[in-house]
Amino acid sequence: MKAVAKMQKAKGLEMTEAEVPQIGQNDVLVEVKACSLCGTDVHIYNWDHPWPDRIKPPRTLGHEVCGIVVEKGSNVTAAEVGDFISAESHIADNTCYQCRIGNSNICMNMKLLGVDINGSFAEYVSVPQQNIWKNPKSMPYEIATLQESMGNSVYTVEESNVNGKNVVIFGAGPTGLFATGISRVLGASQIMVVVGTEFHARIAKQMGADIIINRHEQDVVKEIKSATDGIGADVVLEMSGAGDAIDQSLKSLRQGGQLTLLGLPLRPISIDWSKDIVLKDINIKGINGRKLWQTWVTTSRLLHSKRIDITPIITHKLPLEKYEEAIAVAAAGQSGKVVMFPK
Amino acid sequence: MKAVAKMQKAKGLEMTEAEVPQIGQNDVLVEVKACSLCGTDVHIYNWDHPWPDRIKPPRTLGHEVCGIVVEKGSNVTAAEVGDFISAESHIADNTCYQCRIGNSNICMNMKLLGVDINGSFAEYVSVPQQNIWKNPKSMPYEIATLQESMGNSVYTVEESNVNGKNVVIFGAGPTGLFATGISRVLGASQIMVVVGTEFHARIAKQMGADIIINRHEQDVVKEIKSATDGIGADVVLEMSGAGDAIDQSLKSLRQGGQLTLLGLPLRPISIDWSKDIVLKDINIKGINGRKLWQTWVTTSRLLHSKRIDITPIITHKLPLEKYEEAIAVAAAGQSGKVVMFPK
Amino acid sequence: MKAVAKMQKAKGLEMTEAEVPQIGQNDVLVEVKACSLCGTDVHIYNWDHPWPDRIKPPRTLGHEVCGIVVEKGSNVTAAEVGDFISAESHIADNTCYQCRIGNSNICMNMKLLGVDINGSFAEYVSVPQQNIWKNPKSMPYEIATLQESMGNSVYTVEESNVNGKNVVIFGAGPTGLFATGISRVLGASQIMVVVGTEFHARIAKQMGADIIINRHEQDVVKEIKSATDGIGADVVLEMSGAGDAIDQSLKSLRQGGQLTLLGLPLRPISIDWSKDIVLKDINIKGINGRKLWQTWVTTSRLLHSKRIDITPIITHKLPLEKYEEAIAVAAAGQSGKVVMFPK
Amino acid sequence: MKAVAKMQKAKGLEMTEAEVPQIGQNDVLVEVKACSLCGTDVHIYNWDHPWPDRIKPPRTLGHEVCGIVVEKGSNVTAAEVGDFISAESHIADNTCYQCRIGNSNICMNMKLLGVDINGSFAEYVSVPQQNIWKNPKSMPYEIATLQESMGNSVYTVEESNVNGKNVVIFGAGPTGLFATGISRVLGASQIMVVVGTEFHARIAKQMGADIIINRHEQDVVKEIKSATDGIGADVVLEMSGAGDAIDQSLKSLRQGGQLTLLGLPLRPISIDWSKDIVLKDINIKGINGRKLWQTWVTTSRLLHSKRIDITPIITHKLPLEKYEEAIAVAAAGQSGKVVMFPK
Repeated sequence: MKAVAKMQKAKGLEMTEAEVPQIGQNDVLVEVKACSLCGTDVHIYNWDHPWPDRIKPPRTLGHEVCGIVVEKGSNVTAAEVGDFISAESHIADNTCYQCRIGNSNICMNMKLLGVDINGSFAEYVSVPQQNIWKNPKSMPYEIATLQESMGNSVYTVEESNVNGKNVVIFGAGPTGLFATGISRVLGASQIMVVVGTEFHARIAKQMGADIIINRHEQDVVKEIKSATDGIGADVVLEMSGAGDAIDQSLKSLRQGGQLTLLGLPLRPISIDWSKDIVLKDINIKGINGRKLWQTWVTTSRLLHSKRIDITPIITHKLPLEKYEEAIAVAAAGQSGKVVMFPK
Repeated sequence: MKAVAKMQKAKGLEMTEAEVPQIGQNDVLVEVKACSLCGTDVHIYNWDHPWPDRIKPPRTLGHEVCGIVVEKGSNVTAAEVGDFISAESHIADNTCYQCRIGNSNICMNMKLLGVDINGSFAEYVSVPQQNIWKNPKSMPYEIATLQESMGNSVYTVEESNVNGKNVVIFGAGPTGLFATGISRVLGASQIMVVVGTEFHARIAKQMGADIIINRHEQDVVKEIKSATDGIGADVVLEMSGAGDAIDQSLKSLRQGGQLTLLGLPLRPISIDWSKDIVLKDINIKGINGRKLWQTWVTTSRLLHSKRIDITPIITHKLPLEKYEEAIAVAAAGQSGKVVMFPK
Repeated sequence: MKAVAKMQKAKGLEMTEAEVPQIGQNDVLVEVKACSLCGTDVHIYNWDHPWPDRIKPPRTLGHEVCGIVVEKGSNVTAAEVGDFISAESHIADNTCYQCRIGNSNICMNMKLLGVDINGSFAEYVSVPQQNIWKNPKSMPYEIATLQESMGNSVYTVEESNVNGKNVVIFGAGPTGLFATGISRVLGASQIMVVVGTEFHARIAKQMGADIIINRHEQDVVKEIKSATDGIGADVVLEMSGAGDAIDQSLKSLRQGGQLTLLGLPLRPISIDWSKDIVLKDINIKGINGRKLWQTWVTTSRLLHSKRIDITPIITHKLPLEKYEEAIAVAAAGQSGKVVMFPK
Repeated sequence: MKAVAKMQKAKGLEMTEAEVPQIGQNDVLVEVKACSLCGTDVHIYNWDHPWPDRIKPPRTLGHEVCGIVVEKGSNVTAAEVGDFISAESHIADNTCYQCRIGNSNICMNMKLLGVDINGSFAEYVSVPQQNIWKNPKSMPYEIATLQESMGNSVYTVEESNVNGKNVVIFGAGPTGLFATGISRVLGASQIMVVVGTEFHARIAKQMGADIIINRHEQDVVKEIKSATDGIGADVVLEMSGAGDAIDQSLKSLRQGGQLTLLGLPLRPISIDWSKDIVLKDINIKGINGRKLWQTWVTTSRLLHSKRIDITPIITHKLPLEKYEEAIAVAAAGQSGKVVMFPK
């Protein structure tokens, strides 16, 4: 079968001819219908830190996926052959302290699909039954593959109680765009999105932004204060990882507000904790992955009920063979989500 | 000035010519622009239990109102003459145990506008400054007067975490209709409304119901189970007070679900607490009034941002003189909200 | 091996000579060091409804247990031979909707140890690895076996936010006594326990009750009001299942308070829902089982740190052979927990 | 009357002979029985930033106080002459956005007793009735005056859900020592306190610390990891404001843990937000003041019920005349709380 894999301990990926995976007793074999690109895949392509320490080539990449179950292991009860599924990429051990207290998204012995085992940039992928999510038959492939990615944003927004709130979203990459749409669906009464380009501004508006703030052209904090009677935002979702975004997030927030963080700054950041955090009486929540499986329930239902339409975020659809083009457009930052199809 | 008042300890109301209220140091005088009818007003009209024990005629009725401040007491800082305001009708003492722990909606020494002091079915009403809510100038009078009433439903829905949930609403009177629209705005993924008439069904659909269940024609519990893969609803909002609604609510709910109650059954109800509550591992929340003032913030913002359009719920607009007609249509149950205008 | 089993579809249990269980790939074989009696066991002994519909003799009873792992299946990674463990008796399927949203305590396909598979009133018991809880070596057997039972009360108290609160506990059977001690440890500032006998009153005092109310001799609601400045209790934990306890619980509670229910009333109960629940603006939570595994973490830690001493609740220690005596003392209601030892 | 006041825009305080305050309609006059020193008072004494920008001499200092009501304004209903009260020092306006959403501890127009109006380092102090807290007659003066200060720590601990948790407290000044005792009372199963001196270690042990870590002599993070099976603490309360404490707090915390901050670092702090906050999936809460009035309820009840004994934290009792000595011992850091008595 075709598979896009890291074959060398170096930058780049290759289209290879690989064996169809052998499944174990607790696994299903999935015929991949669509797979999508994550920022992590770009970093692995570039062989950026910390991936060289973790990935052992040859390794098929890809962890966002949907497809049809074509074979199942002898212990599998969670799905039948013919089922249309997506997969959660975090394979938890279910026995560590974090799993036992409800945090399997931060399992202490986590394995990742497409990183620690072969992934979904291929015609077939083996998925542990505990990681299966069944989709409604009517869900389009290009939507079904995006649920894991959208789930990060659902977890971010659900932790932030946006109903009736003034919400700011820093960053209009895929996670910020998902968060814009989700905040709208969950009842934020005013949504401000901080963007860097007109390309992203346009999609943010389609997803429900009320106010667009261009970080290159406007005084971000001033605009947010101005739109909130000088009080500051009730909720800030930091989805950009930009160097100054956390400082601006804190300064844009009202006292007693909520800052939720998904973006990953590249460097340490210096903050006046006394003034901007402690005396501000605020809440901060870091987001890693997505709550299993509450986040999938919400994600799937919002999509299936058509409460949210995420098609504006899908900017590129490509055959899997054009994985180099997919990586390139994602790396260039001029894309929403890039979806690929093995056939 | 004109005022609609209970003049006798008996059924009925009268249009009277009253003095414009004298305000105290902490009060404002409001020129009433719109006032709206609540089910309580109908009960007081009918002189139903327990109102004869509480109301001392002569008493001007009315507690849902908006208007313009035309005079203010010497201690008033919360509003200026010319401000467009609505009023919260629960006048809390701010010093009792409930007020001190954040429950001023259930103040132990509560006074009610239009019950314990003269109300808003008049050309002018005196309002304590602590009960003022300032409105945006652009909000229509017929909307601004409905915020207190809508607030009951906002409190109900916000206590129920409807995002991404299967939600059932029993009752499509005004509170049920508000709750339908609010559940939609706050992200419920499937909304089922149990109604009694085609009149109410039509408005429920306009407010965002996905499924209408007619309680006279359908097996309510069976329909709900059927629409939820046999699991039952995640959330039930009981807004009807109907005799069998609580039993049906409990049976429609999935294990671990949320039942939130605003409807007031007239008689004691017999329930199998072991099976339907304890072993079901569910949450139940009674709703009295609305959270001061978090509920007003959400209500005002959802309206001002046009996230919700409540105009389908306003079925009747009448001059204050036609208060008898207003009472009659409300009592007949063939109405949403009835709004009256003194001028 | 010795095993106490239901051998006939009729009242009673028998001491039998059974085969040591064959374990599966995902199971461990446990040499039972202590097992304890639950009210459920008494009901099964008496062949009360609904157990005849569920239990298929021969069936070894018992679901509260601790012991040493003496053999493990080929897939087991959660424990080693020699580990000292307790077992959770609810065997969840981990794939149903309830399991996926964090409610594996109410799994839709639940199996119970000692009910659906052979249990722990025996020298050896087979336990699925997912149901293992590892104990500190220093924990006494008679304590370690009680963690599942105590866990019900930990879940009840943790759902009720007792810190700094006036707490009433209805019932001083084992779950009420555990709840008394746990409420004390978690910071309830005043603990009132409603008891029926002097025997239970004495243990309740040992566990930390500030006020004992004898339901046969005192006006329960009046005493509670009197001890709370007429306001009512902040929190009521209903652990008795007594016929009038829910009505008294509701009447004892202050407006806006919390009622948490573990006791199982035998018959339907008639309540004035309008006055005692809706207008009271209260929260009610039904409790089924215990949160997996957050409850075990808290239970184990409170015991291991000696923050709580539950030895006063252990009123009887018997060899397993004396199971008839164990059943008899539990049925007579003159006991706390009864612990049995196979050797 | 005697009053200790800032008389000049410069370092220092003076004992002056002042007029007994004239009270307004909404105020009570309190005969001060005890007042206590806060770190803020030391900063004002030293005329540290930002106090010169805010305080206008002459100004009587002091905001922790208890005493007897000796006179009341004409509108006062919350207390009677003869009542024994303490006072909350934050005077909220009750009408701003923060007050309306339940955050009167961060009122946007806050006035502070002993800063913006004359305070309690005097024989008499005027207190607005909304800031009165009534004490049980049996509470000792030296305890009653400490409730506002202890309340900061109660708010910190209550926001952190310490029940059954491994809790680390950085800093063993008064707020850290209060937090140690409160964490113990609210059910933390293991309490580690990071101290700088043997003096503070001794009091921390008296307040319930299980493990003392000396930050000068031990590797703080390593000790915490070691005491938590390498996992890290569930909860960290940062009460020191020390320069490296926030970095150590984050590194000591387990993934998914809770960091609550009351200490005020003097300078900006550089943190790796990606690794130590976002990917760690943690919660951070800044603490400003204390929740009005839920915190007072808990504080008063824990003291009145003798669940907690805070007398080890009171290291100095002095007549008000010895205010210079009080400032000196507090500034030297070799004290717990310093309580002063005007008579």
